[in-house]
Amino acid sequence: MNRPPEDSKPPGTALSHISPDGRARMVDVSGKAVTCRTAVAEGWVTLNADTMALLQEHGGAGKGDVLQTARIAGIQAAKRTSELIPMCHPVATDVVNIEASLVENRVRLIVEAVASGRTGVEMEALTGASVAALTVYDMLKAVDKGIEIGPVRLISKSGGKSGDWQRDASRQE
Amino acid sequence: MNRPPEDSKPPGTALSHISPDGRARMVDVSGKAVTCRTAVAEGWVTLNADTMALLQEHGGAGKGDVLQTARIAGIQAAKRTSELIPMCHPVATDVVNIEASLVENRVRLIVEAVASGRTGVEMEALTGASVAALTVYDMLKAVDKGIEIGPVRLISKSGGKSGDWQRDASRQE
Amino acid sequence: MNRPPEDSKPPGTALSHISPDGRARMVDVSGKAVTCRTAVAEGWVTLNADTMALLQEHGGAGKGDVLQTARIAGIQAAKRTSELIPMCHPVATDVVNIEASLVENRVRLIVEAVASGRTGVEMEALTGASVAALTVYDMLKAVDKGIEIGPVRLISKSGGKSGDWQRDASRQE
Amino acid sequence: MNRPPEDSKPPGTALSHISPDGRARMVDVSGKAVTCRTAVAEGWVTLNADTMALLQEHGGAGKGDVLQTARIAGIQAAKRTSELIPMCHPVATDVVNIEASLVENRVRLIVEAVASGRTGVEMEALTGASVAALTVYDMLKAVDKGIEIGPVRLISKSGGKSGDWQRDASRQE
Amino acid sequence: MNRPPEDSKPPGTALSHISPDGRARMVDVSGKAVTCRTAVAEGWVTLNADTMALLQEHGGAGKGDVLQTARIAGIQAAKRTSELIPMCHPVATDVVNIEASLVENRVRLIVEAVASGRTGVEMEALTGASVAALTVYDMLKAVDKGIEIGPVRLISKSGGKSGDWQRDASRQE
Amino acid sequence: MNRPPEDSKPPGTALSHISPDGRARMVDVSGKAVTCRTAVAEGWVTLNADTMALLQEHGGAGKGDVLQTARIAGIQAAKRTSELIPMCHPVATDVVNIEASLVENRVRLIVEAVASGRTGVEMEALTGASVAALTVYDMLKAVDKGIEIGPVRLISKSGGKSGDWQRDASRQE
Repeated sequence: MNRPPEDSKPPGTALSHISPDGRARMVDVSGKAVTCRTAVAEGWVTLNADTMALLQEHGGAGKGDVLQTARIAGIQAAKRTSELIPMCHPVATDVVNIEASLVENRVRLIVEAVASGRTGVEMEALTGASVAALTVYDMLKAVDKGIEIGPVRLISKSGGKSGDWQRDASRQE
Repeated sequence: MNRPPEDSKPPGTALSHISPDGRARMVDVSGKAVTCRTAVAEGWVTLNADTMALLQEHGGAGKGDVLQTARIAGIQAAKRTSELIPMCHPVATDVVNIEASLVENRVRLIVEAVASGRTGVEMEALTGASVAALTVYDMLKAVDKGIEIGPVRLISKSGGKSGDWQRDASRQE
Repeated sequence: MNRPPEDSKPPGTALSHISPDGRARMVDVSGKAVTCRTAVAEGWVTLNADTMALLQEHGGAGKGDVLQTARIAGIQAAKRTSELIPMCHPVATDVVNIEASLVENRVRLIVEAVASGRTGVEMEALTGASVAALTVYDMLKAVDKGIEIGPVRLISKSGGKSGDWQRDASRQE
Repeated sequence: MNRPPEDSKPPGTALSHISPDGRARMVDVSGKAVTCRTAVAEGWVTLNADTMALLQEHGGAGKGDVLQTARIAGIQAAKRTSELIPMCHPVATDVVNIEASLVENRVRLIVEAVASGRTGVEMEALTGASVAALTVYDMLKAVDKGIEIGPVRLISKSGGKSGDWQRDASRQE
Repeated sequence: MNRPPEDSKPPGTALSHISPDGRARMVDVSGKAVTCRTAVAEGWVTLNADTMALLQEHGGAGKGDVLQTARIAGIQAAKRTSELIPMCHPVATDVVNIEASLVENRVRLIVEAVASGRTGVEMEALTGASVAALTVYDMLKAVDKGIEIGPVRLISKSGGKSGDWQRDASRQE
Repeated sequence: MNRPPEDSKPPGTALSHISPDGRARMVDVSGKAVTCRTAVAEGWVTLNADTMALLQEHGGAGKGDVLQTARIAGIQAAKRTSELIPMCHPVATDVVNIEASLVENRVRLIVEAVASGRTGVEMEALTGASVAALTVYDMLKAVDKGIEIGPVRLISKSGGKSGDWQRDASRQE
């Protein structure tokens, strides 16, 4: 069994998670350098006006509890990303932090993940944002089942062979 | 320790996951009837034109593998929803099915969850859709880190005390 | 392979988790009735005066966050009890609730677990109390590594063949 | 999103798991050195005389099985500490060892955890001790539901910026 | 989204886990009756003569510990089968019991799983046998890395629509 | 608590997972060097002629889906080996790859695991092979419950103090 060279991709494509014969695979990172990697992702949850009013009026404790439960759920999920995403590598995150805030009628969740390793932490940040957003939905679904999650997307990353990446300001809301 | 009556809510609110004194809590479902519950959720992933071309040109195996890996990841995550979402009840799902398709420049994931139990399966469907969408991102992120996930949202549910619910056609894309 | 009759115990003993030939085993509950079962457990964490002062002075947000993080961790762990305790049965808990309060220089965690099933939920309540207590320790260990956890113990249970049980008031603090 | 400097603490406090604005957070360990870290914790379980007699009379196999099941459960839980304790970092433990012995009418569990990493392993040792103690309870609860767990506490630690720590002999039993 | 009728299979095949359009799926069991289901599986591990001698000479404690660790690992894995096998349903097992014995130069593991549910427990029994066998390998691999696992296979099952099944005596060793 | 020297073994034996006093234990790897480790394992699943015909005739999609589901399940299980095998160390695998092919009436699964660490990845490769084989069984069990898994065995390993190891060609099929 010959391992393909690091980051080999099918001819004519750039899908590193697909092998030359077209099958899903993990990327072999054994030849990559251990560097400090960071990623920041954001997740949005759009509430209707009544639900947002309820969340705010319920004030200190209530809002705090919804947002803090979401933050804790997101942190815990980020640490378990490799269990959830089949081709993800296990990563020992140095920190996962989540900020939750209200922006007009939406909840904004910003997740930063940091690790020293051979692979990036984009998926950790995005998984944290998704599960935090799902938790906001869960805490509020008795009031409005129509709440929408999204966009969930990467804001920036640093470290690793592919280097730094920043979302175009023009593509951000 | 007196358990609050089923579904008790803080005065003036409808946040069943917040206790009268403002703390996150599980809802007590011990008094609820066991009924068949279903939920359908959808998740969208927006690709740029190049990535979509790559996904399609890569054709049979490649596209299949990206979408099937996403489907399997979503099914597995849906079964573990109560581990991820702090206030969710453990549910023995009777089935979780995921359909993945390409709609213009987007991937659409439809997740149906079914269970007989005392609590709904909306979170199972939404968690399946989110993790399937994250997996699509993971499989394609080497090509475009800017891929966006969302909306992830409930389409319909049936069963339980709150009965049937259907997303307004006008709110659907 | 003959299954031993329900609740068979080694001759002369009452250790249902030890087989007649002296080996750890799960108890076969397939013949037991499905009834509503409850259990209440408590867990204590003893702080020194400085740490307690810090926790209280840090006031609203700080204390709330330490205790709420502990409550969420305990609820999540209680739902996963059968993963942690080798001979425990999987249980679909109808609710796990945790109250956290300060009693002099101690944190008191009271956990109630409820389920409809063939087996009791004592271990769910005790596991929730233990993990909530460990989380309090984790949140405060930068201040005092000497913090002690305990006692963690059952307060009461109801339901099932063995019926109701209540801790002697004389054995409670 | 500016990451706070390593180990920053709220003004006037030392609660590293609480952010300056009073929210639970993981500590950022990305700037810490990788060193060998050890921690030893103990956990006690107090039995009544009858239960202890039963445990001992049941002799070789029985006692061995109760204690060995507890040891295995504790080792497995210690490896999964970061899943259970929300703000804990994933740690690749080099070893977790548990000694179980009977001291008068109590079971004593001593857990040692060792890892090379950026963060200590106190929580791993304490989690191992707690889950081992819970398992002893589970194995014996058919005989006595009143069994008490505790104290569970740190005995010593070494390595890391905060250096060595040893429980006062005067505070030990 | 129309759910296929229960147990629908692709035309001309009997692969219930493959949808008519050729994709992996969970079987919808929501229409199935809750009945008591049992399954017995066996797993074999073949040692060389030296390793078997070592295992036996090491006698009481040693052999016991290898086999008991394997039994506990198998029980715990059986309870988590639906996490490991993508299309498996969550099942609340009423009991999982494992017998381990030495037969000439082989270790024989017999696993019985029992549950009341809408789906069989064959996978629980087989997963328990596989993980118990892997644990025997792990405990002995320092002596012989060439140890072979297998066969792992179903011996019998009962309950459910497909009724009872028994392995042909002629196909058993 | 004195830790035994690295790799200490009971007198007269080579069972590193058994302590001198005969109890299961993790091996202390804190003194071992971090090196690149690889392991290759294989797992076989024997089908009867009808099932194999069905698998092949079902052709592209069907066969692909059975084998790909098995591959994904095996990769995910390999990443969680330390949760399943009690004395295994957590390992951050750099890659797990699985090849699945049909050889006469059998499915052959080859798993390669690679990691940089203080401990080998044999168990990761073997666990991946076992769970992939169980998944093949699960996908086909509606057709034939008599399908046999095995042998599951190590083919080769490299790295670490014990160096390289290769299965005798004469012992391979």
